[in-house]
Amino acid sequence: MNKRNLALIDAKTTLVGLLATPIKHSITPAMHNLGYTISGLNYAYLAFDVGTDKLRETVEGLKAMGAAGFNVSMPNKIDVQQYVDELDESARLAGASNTVVHKDGKLIGYNTDGLGYVKNLEEHGVQLEGMKVTLVGSGGVAASIAIQLVQAGIKELSIFARNDKFFANAKANMSCINQEMKDYGVSTNVFPLEDDEAFRKEIAGSAILAHCTSLGMKPLHEWSVLDGLTDVLRQDLIVTDVVYNPRKTKLLAQAEAAGAKAINGLGMVLWQGALSYKLFTGEEMPMKEIKAIIFGEGY
Amino acid sequence: MNKRNLALIDAKTTLVGLLATPIKHSITPAMHNLGYTISGLNYAYLAFDVGTDKLRETVEGLKAMGAAGFNVSMPNKIDVQQYVDELDESARLAGASNTVVHKDGKLIGYNTDGLGYVKNLEEHGVQLEGMKVTLVGSGGVAASIAIQLVQAGIKELSIFARNDKFFANAKANMSCINQEMKDYGVSTNVFPLEDDEAFRKEIAGSAILAHCTSLGMKPLHEWSVLDGLTDVLRQDLIVTDVVYNPRKTKLLAQAEAAGAKAINGLGMVLWQGALSYKLFTGEEMPMKEIKAIIFGEGY
Repeated sequence: MNKRNLALIDAKTTLVGLLATPIKHSITPAMHNLGYTISGLNYAYLAFDVGTDKLRETVEGLKAMGAAGFNVSMPNKIDVQQYVDELDESARLAGASNTVVHKDGKLIGYNTDGLGYVKNLEEHGVQLEGMKVTLVGSGGVAASIAIQLVQAGIKELSIFARNDKFFANAKANMSCINQEMKDYGVSTNVFPLEDDEAFRKEIAGSAILAHCTSLGMKPLHEWSVLDGLTDVLRQDLIVTDVVYNPRKTKLLAQAEAAGAKAINGLGMVLWQGALSYKLFTGEEMPMKEIKAIIFGEGY
Repeated sequence: MNKRNLALIDAKTTLVGLLATPIKHSITPAMHNLGYTISGLNYAYLAFDVGTDKLRETVEGLKAMGAAGFNVSMPNKIDVQQYVDELDESARLAGASNTVVHKDGKLIGYNTDGLGYVKNLEEHGVQLEGMKVTLVGSGGVAASIAIQLVQAGIKELSIFARNDKFFANAKANMSCINQEMKDYGVSTNVFPLEDDEAFRKEIAGSAILAHCTSLGMKPLHEWSVLDGLTDVLRQDLIVTDVVYNPRKTKLLAQAEAAGAKAINGLGMVLWQGALSYKLFTGEEMPMKEIKAIIFGEGY
């Protein structure tokens, strides 16, 4: 994680940015810069500690100064959409962008989180087609993952969200999926996360439990969405987490203890990054080397 | 010139920029990045191809995204002053900034061109105190150099500028120096560059001919301000050029042929860069290594 990459910078180097706060411990700049260095691409990827209050000026500035594009993370994924010129379907359906590409004088918002999640599952040999998934979360990442799960051919999707202001988000996301993606014929339902009975029932019929909130990430690392509910775990359940810091969240430790398959968020970070990398540079990210160097043993 | 430097980039790396057009052949990014690498400073210096039409958005963006500052070159040195929060005296008197520092939430404009010029002359063992200087040029660089020459203790300054729209600039610069710097007691005069008789007379009494326009730079490399006037050259005249591409301009070749001392613009670039470097990072630029690696034999 502390590994620094080498990059080559001259007057022709093109900037790519990451806009988020907090940001100082992100592994994303190292991942992209290492890719540029390995592939001999003349780009430099820098992180900017920017929140929603300075997002407009930053986005307009990056456009004016000719950046190739930028990634967007918390808390900017939703707000950034009002400052771009166009939205790709992946961003429009999710209601959030994690990638903005500057092309032909326009900024175009994309969302590679969901596809990154699905590609990571595929890489882990997880079969999605025809499966039922229980998903926890209501933010932009959860929405992006839900959309890509539907596109990947799942049969049924049960979404759990806390019964607070986020519950409306989850409802809205599902309403969007049901309306705009109805051709996929996926049955979707939204439940309050407080409803333990519903949670037990939905998990029992699911092949995958997809945890898509920041619970379990430091400083919330002593918490798990399954606290008091570990009885839902079984050996043929696949439990995935979007969190990668720590590598093994409490949720994933609980899953492993019950003999279930546990997949952490590192692979998703890698894959969403690779998809962004391709959008920024037009080139494939050198996955193998980056896995080995940046992700190391924790992958 | 094609030498690329290595820089270390992670999520804590601070951006420094250069705003100019054209820009793709600037040696400035290599100079600063090499300095950061040698000194172990976590900055990255990138060039942005930005003209006056996109200057406002770029400046506001760099401020919003927390850049440490930026250099400004043609054609932005004058326009940038309207977008900063404060002007250092060096920028205010010159009417132009080449360096903008982001500190305590404010952008402060500086001009290090003139002091860079003077430091380069000092390094070449040139005595300025009590001397008369003939200066050719009316732009921001010329003004910055004129001001620093006055502060360095010269006795008399004769400025030559083309008798067109730039002549008013030169007049204004001198008026400013005469008013605001009258305590220095320097005698200043402005002449039209077309007045060969005045030019011969002023050079004859000068220790230094300071050429401060882009004449002689590619693609104007077949021209010299002394074309048809090389008879003014003498062995004890010091001829300086702000141009460094080519290393030996036609003017400097003429000076050398007449046995005069010729000093090109490389040292000024190095020194103005070192002054900016100090303003951006608070640290001294590693001059010796940078001279050897970036400037090499041409220095």
